[in-house]
Amino acid sequence: MRQTLAQKILQGRTDETITQDGQIVRCRVDLVLANDITAPLAIKSFRRMGADKVFDKDKIALVCDHFTPNKDIDSAEQVKVVREFAREKNITHYYEGGDCGVEHALLPEMGLVGPGDVVVGADSHTCTYGGLGAFATGMGSTDIAGAMVLGETWFKVPPTIRVLLEGTLAPWVGGKDLILEVIGRIGVSGALYKALEFGGAALAGLSVEQRLTMANMAIEAGGKAGLFPADAKTLAYAKAAGRSGDKEIHADEGAFYEQTLTIDCSAMTPRVACPHLPDNVKPVAECKGIRLDQSVIGSCTNGRIEDMREAAQVLKGRKVANHVRCIVLPATPRIWKQALKEGLLEIFMDSGCIVGPPTCGPCLGGHMGILAAGERSIATTNRNFKGRMGSLESEVYLSNPAVAAASAIAGEIVHPESV
Amino acid sequence: MRQTLAQKILQGRTDETITQDGQIVRCRVDLVLANDITAPLAIKSFRRMGADKVFDKDKIALVCDHFTPNKDIDSAEQVKVVREFAREKNITHYYEGGDCGVEHALLPEMGLVGPGDVVVGADSHTCTYGGLGAFATGMGSTDIAGAMVLGETWFKVPPTIRVLLEGTLAPWVGGKDLILEVIGRIGVSGALYKALEFGGAALAGLSVEQRLTMANMAIEAGGKAGLFPADAKTLAYAKAAGRSGDKEIHADEGAFYEQTLTIDCSAMTPRVACPHLPDNVKPVAECKGIRLDQSVIGSCTNGRIEDMREAAQVLKGRKVANHVRCIVLPATPRIWKQALKEGLLEIFMDSGCIVGPPTCGPCLGGHMGILAAGERSIATTNRNFKGRMGSLESEVYLSNPAVAAASAIAGEIVHPESV
Repeated sequence: MRQTLAQKILQGRTDETITQDGQIVRCRVDLVLANDITAPLAIKSFRRMGADKVFDKDKIALVCDHFTPNKDIDSAEQVKVVREFAREKNITHYYEGGDCGVEHALLPEMGLVGPGDVVVGADSHTCTYGGLGAFATGMGSTDIAGAMVLGETWFKVPPTIRVLLEGTLAPWVGGKDLILEVIGRIGVSGALYKALEFGGAALAGLSVEQRLTMANMAIEAGGKAGLFPADAKTLAYAKAAGRSGDKEIHADEGAFYEQTLTIDCSAMTPRVACPHLPDNVKPVAECKGIRLDQSVIGSCTNGRIEDMREAAQVLKGRKVANHVRCIVLPATPRIWKQALKEGLLEIFMDSGCIVGPPTCGPCLGGHMGILAAGERSIATTNRNFKGRMGSLESEVYLSNPAVAAASAIAGEIVHPESV
Repeated sequence: MRQTLAQKILQGRTDETITQDGQIVRCRVDLVLANDITAPLAIKSFRRMGADKVFDKDKIALVCDHFTPNKDIDSAEQVKVVREFAREKNITHYYEGGDCGVEHALLPEMGLVGPGDVVVGADSHTCTYGGLGAFATGMGSTDIAGAMVLGETWFKVPPTIRVLLEGTLAPWVGGKDLILEVIGRIGVSGALYKALEFGGAALAGLSVEQRLTMANMAIEAGGKAGLFPADAKTLAYAKAAGRSGDKEIHADEGAFYEQTLTIDCSAMTPRVACPHLPDNVKPVAECKGIRLDQSVIGSCTNGRIEDMREAAQVLKGRKVANHVRCIVLPATPRIWKQALKEGLLEIFMDSGCIVGPPTCGPCLGGHMGILAAGERSIATTNRNFKGRMGSLESEVYLSNPAVAAASAIAGEIVHPESV
C-alpha cells in the first residue's frame, strides 16, 4: 500500500501490517512523556495497576514545566510526587530545576524525539514532534501509565488531511500564520482524529522550528497528529541535537488523502486568532486597533530561539507601550542562554519587557502573567479559549512573535510593519 | 536636646519640638508606599474615608511587586485595582510591568527615598530606607490611606538601641550576617517599637547596599526603624540615584540610648537563621550538613547588584547540586540588566540556576519557588516563619548570598570557603 506519513511511521513500530485507515494497531513507543500536571495522575494509575517497573527508564520523560518555578504549595506537592517517582524508578530524563524547560521545546533540542519515533505524552501538544517526522500524540494519564509499563500502546490509524503549502513565505509570515490559516479554514474540529500532513513547495523553506510550531497546533484543529516529512533539514536538526542513525521519511507518492487543502504562502499576511477559539482567524489588518494590556512571547508554540530573534528584531530600539506588560519566556534554559549570548535579552529588557524563566506559565492560565476581568492579551501561545489565561472575562489573541512584539509596542494589535 | 537619629529625622518633619522618647508627634511624610497586596486595602480605606484627592501625586509610590508577573486571577484583580486608582489619581510613581521591581530595591535606586526623609509604607520592610538615613516604617493600610490623604501621620518617638559595629568585616561576612547577629542576640521582640541605630568604626566599610540589607531586617527584631547615619557614601549613592540637595545626618554626640550592643565584625563568621524564627541564629559551621531542596537568591533584603556579584563569585564555574533548585531573582529591572551586562546572569545559567524576573515571589510564599511538605530552602530573604515559603511542613534558613550560593552547589548548608 502506498502510505501516508501517519501510516508509514506507525508501520515502523508495529508488527502488524497496516492496510487501511481506521485499523487498530499495537505500536511500540520510543518515548512516554508526562508533566507536573499529568504525571501525578499517571503515577496514581501506574500504582493502581499494581505496576512495579517501567518498561525502560531511558524512554520516559518527566518534565515539570507547567507551574514551575513552583507557583504554590499544590504545585510544589505535585512536583514532589513526580520527583519521588522519578527517583524510585531511576528515570533518566527527569527535569525540574535549572535544566528544565517547556517540554515540547526541551525534548526536541535534547534529541529525545526524532524522525520515525512514536511518542505518546500526557499533554495535548505532544503532537509538536510531528515537526520532526515523529508520530506523536497526546493521551490521557491512564493510557500514559499503561505505556510506561508496557512500552507500547494501541492506535486507530488516522485518516490524513494533506496540507499543501505552495509558493514562498511572505514577509512577517511564519509557521504560526500558516497553521492558524489551516485551523481557520477547517475549524477546531476539522481534523478530529485525523492526521494533518504538510507538504508542498514551501516546505523546503520552513525551518524545523517553524514546523514544530505548526505541528504543535494540529491539536487545535482536533488533529491526532500534525506530520512533516523528515528531510535533510530534519536530519541536520536531529544530528545537532545529538542523535544518530536517523533517516529521511516521506509519504509515498499516490498515498490516499481524505482531503487536500492548499495554502498559497506568497499571498499570506500575518494571522490573528481572535477570542475565543483558535479557528476565529483573521488577517492582522482586520484586528487593528484592539487595545491590549499584555503581550506574551513564549510557550511550546513560539518560545524557541527563532521566535526570540523575530521578537527582538521588532522590539530593538523601541519601547513597550506604557500600559502593556510584555512577558518574554524563552522556552528552555538553552534558548534562554542563547538569547542572552545573542543580545536578545538585553533588547527585551531595554524595551521594557519582563523576561521570565522557562515555563508554560500564562499560556494555560498557570502563572506568570494571568489576566484580570476585562484584560486583553496577545500571545504567541496556542489556545485562546474563554478564561484560558485567567479571568473568564478576559480575552486572548493568538499571533506570531513579530505581531506580538509589534502590538506590545503599539499598545494595540498591529502589523509588524507599522511600528 | 542631644538627638538620636530617630529624633533628629522626625524633628526635621514636625513643627513640634521633640523633647523625649515616647512623645507623640505629627510629621509630614516624604513618600507614602503601598504594594499589590496592601494598596487595594488602602484604597478601600481611602474611599471609605470619603477622600477624593491624594495629598501629592508625586509622593505616593504604588509598586505591584509581590505576586507579579500576575500569579493568578486574584492577584491580577488586585493589580487592576491599584492600576485604576493610580490612573484616577494620576499617581506619578506607579510600577507594574517591565519597569517594576521589588519596592524596597526599586525606590532607593530611583532616588525616591533618601537622607532625612520620613517614609511610611504599607509593608513591614519599609524600614529598609533607614539604610539611607530615612526614618521609614511599615504601617497598616488604613494609616497609609490616611497618609495618602493628609501627607502626614503621627509617630510615637521611639527609644533607640545603639548597635556599635566595631573592627573590620571578616571575609564572607556582610550586612546580612551582622543584622542576623543583632536579631539573634536581642530576639525577634528585642527592639519592639524601638529604633535600631547603627554606628561604630566598621560602618565606614559598609556599602549603602549592605546598610539597606541591615535596615531592612530591623523589623525582624520588632524594630520601628533601623537607622544609619547619612554620610559621604550615602550622599554619593543618593546623587547617583538622581537626587540633589541631600545633606549628611548624624546623631548628636551624647544622645541618650536605651541600650548599646557591640559587635566585633572582625570576629564574625557568616550566620544562618534556622527555622522557624529569624532570631534562631547560628554560625554557618553549626548548620553544616543540612540537606537542601532549594536556594533562593533575591528579595528586598539581598537582591541588589552587590548580592548578585557575591553569589556569582561563588557560583562561577561550578554547578548547582542536582537535587537543588537555585532561583535567582534580581530585585529590579536595572539590577537585572546590570547583572546581564556584567556576565552574572550567564554565570548563573551556566551553573544551572533559574533566573527569574524581579518579584518578591517565594520570599513570602507568593510564587516562583514555593516549598512542598518536607522541603528545605536556604534563602537570602528576611523571614523563616513556619510556612513562610510554602507548606507548614517546610523549612527556611536565612543567609547571605555567598552562603546561599555555596549551599546550592554543595546541596547542603556550607561555608562559602568550602566549595
